[in-house]
Amino acid sequence: MKKSIFYHAGCPVCISAEHDIINLIGEDNVEIVHLGEDRDQLDTAESAGVQSVPALLTPNGNVLHINFGASMADVRG
Amino acid sequence: MKKSIFYHAGCPVCISAEHDIINLIGEDNVEIVHLGEDRDQLDTAESAGVQSVPALLTPNGNVLHINFGASMADVRG
Repeated sequence: MKKSIFYHAGCPVCISAEHDIINLIGEDNVEIVHLGEDRDQLDTAESAGVQSVPALLTPNGNVLHINFGASMADVRG
Repeated sequence: MKKSIFYHAGCPVCISAEHDIINLIGEDNVEIVHLGEDRDQLDTAESAGVQSVPALLTPNGNVLHINFGASMADVRG
């Protein structure tokens, strides 16, 4: 299975959701991207449809916005 | 593993998220509850922390609100 990508920015809501997602779909099935640190991924994430973090980009290209930590504008700062 | 519960209310956002969640965590690991039809589950869902649908209640009791279809007030109608 192609991996999902979990985008976050280190916020408490993000970390909590990250643990839940890893428990649910398995660590091997998800790549974690910290947009606060890995800032050259910001454009990629927004192009994929990520509007806020935390968000999960599924292997088929859908974006699941999970709870709400911060908007992409907030992450860009 | 204890099952997760996916709460939805039949809205397009819900159905799309349902397909994604089933693909990600497997049909056998998630119970689907349609709050529009199964209305005696509304109190249970709200007590668990569900504020909008679609939402996934994880086995450890966390609620992941996924995108936004409708508020619980909308579902109660």
